[in-house]
Amino acid sequence: MSFEIGVYGLGRFGIFWADLLSRFANVSVYSRTRKDYLPNHLKLVTEDEVLSADALFYCVSISSFEEVLQRTCGRIQSATVVFDTCSVKVFPAKIMKENLDREVQIIATHPMFGPDSAKNGVAGLPMVWSPVRAEMETAARWLDFFKQTGLAMIQMSPEDHDREAAYTQGITHYIGRVLADLKLAPSRIATLGYRKLLEIVEQTCNDPWQLFLDIQNFNPYTREMRERLHKSLEKIYGNLDQTLDTR
Amino acid sequence: MSFEIGVYGLGRFGIFWADLLSRFANVSVYSRTRKDYLPNHLKLVTEDEVLSADALFYCVSISSFEEVLQRTCGRIQSATVVFDTCSVKVFPAKIMKENLDREVQIIATHPMFGPDSAKNGVAGLPMVWSPVRAEMETAARWLDFFKQTGLAMIQMSPEDHDREAAYTQGITHYIGRVLADLKLAPSRIATLGYRKLLEIVEQTCNDPWQLFLDIQNFNPYTREMRERLHKSLEKIYGNLDQTLDTR
Repeated sequence: MSFEIGVYGLGRFGIFWADLLSRFANVSVYSRTRKDYLPNHLKLVTEDEVLSADALFYCVSISSFEEVLQRTCGRIQSATVVFDTCSVKVFPAKIMKENLDREVQIIATHPMFGPDSAKNGVAGLPMVWSPVRAEMETAARWLDFFKQTGLAMIQMSPEDHDREAAYTQGITHYIGRVLADLKLAPSRIATLGYRKLLEIVEQTCNDPWQLFLDIQNFNPYTREMRERLHKSLEKIYGNLDQTLDTR
Repeated sequence: MSFEIGVYGLGRFGIFWADLLSRFANVSVYSRTRKDYLPNHLKLVTEDEVLSADALFYCVSISSFEEVLQRTCGRIQSATVVFDTCSVKVFPAKIMKENLDREVQIIATHPMFGPDSAKNGVAGLPMVWSPVRAEMETAARWLDFFKQTGLAMIQMSPEDHDREAAYTQGITHYIGRVLADLKLAPSRIATLGYRKLLEIVEQTCNDPWQLFLDIQNFNPYTREMRERLHKSLEKIYGNLDQTLDTR
């Protein structure tokens, strides 16, 4: 495609995402905060400029998305296709539909990887997408675009995504943060399983703390996940105490 | 070495262990229960015969070790070197010292792997050993023997082992059992981290439930580990609830 993609937000994920897209299209980028370091080939533009791109990807934190969208949506042209990249989907899909002009097409996405898990390339990695409000032809064109990057594209409703992500990504980040709080350390006598546990801590805790909070707080299904996790923990714990008593 | 190694106990680990040793020495095996399947090259003998081997490895569950040792120790000759292979070390080292004749040499071991984690060979995998009551020459001879198998031999006191294993093997098995209780399933939108979580469940839950209970109950440091895990979980949980309230 020979048009301009705008990436709004240059956190850890935004830079990674802009870099990936720039291998397949012209990309301009914008950040609300000054960036001391940016890959050379990314074209830094003003907020107004990034908002006038043909396709606009918001790469801001989930918890700031509503504020950013409300402040910027009035400057988005009707021909622009708007994407979010949030790790939850019900919430951003809802506020995009509520705030963006009816002519603006909306595709919600969740690239289920980041700088760490994609360090050896994105081929085969899963990306969830949901044509929240898009013409069939627009959706098909973007599906083709993403397929050429090698990603495994999975179409899902925002509800289905959040339900399933609570018990996959949500629980992994939760376990990772709990284990990090325990300050687990590498060990000479590490079993293979323990090494995997350390990898989970490392991978989830490289992401910003805000992402962890947002995944837990903005996905309507993670509270149930956490409650079930606690119940299972209590059950296993109870098993042990009983065993101890009968020894 | 041209002498006979006896393996007492043919559970999942015992068969694996006898099979591994048989590549480097003559091995005879014994089980208290009838075995319908055994690898052809393992020589099944009587209890008295296995106890008269030059080196005797107990591969019984931690919780049955004391009973088995007390019932069999009177038939062990003073020239026999006795090894346990338990996943905890303070407890078996203590009961071996208490029950075995003073002439009998004792080496406590913990091969920190099993049929799953060693399916691609044992080279480089860690094995903890502790010469609880052994002549220097005997210990050196067995260290050489194990080194030729490719294992990474780590000498540690039973106390040091249990303290460190509580926060490596102990916590991994605990998390594995809790997640198994949650019935996590493979997912199309699995992140790399979630796949590792599933691998931990699979690996820890292939082992017998009794091994899980024994690791938790017979290691004097796992109770503290579980209590700290609970505290960390409550802390992260509390963080989230606060965040929710202020939204």
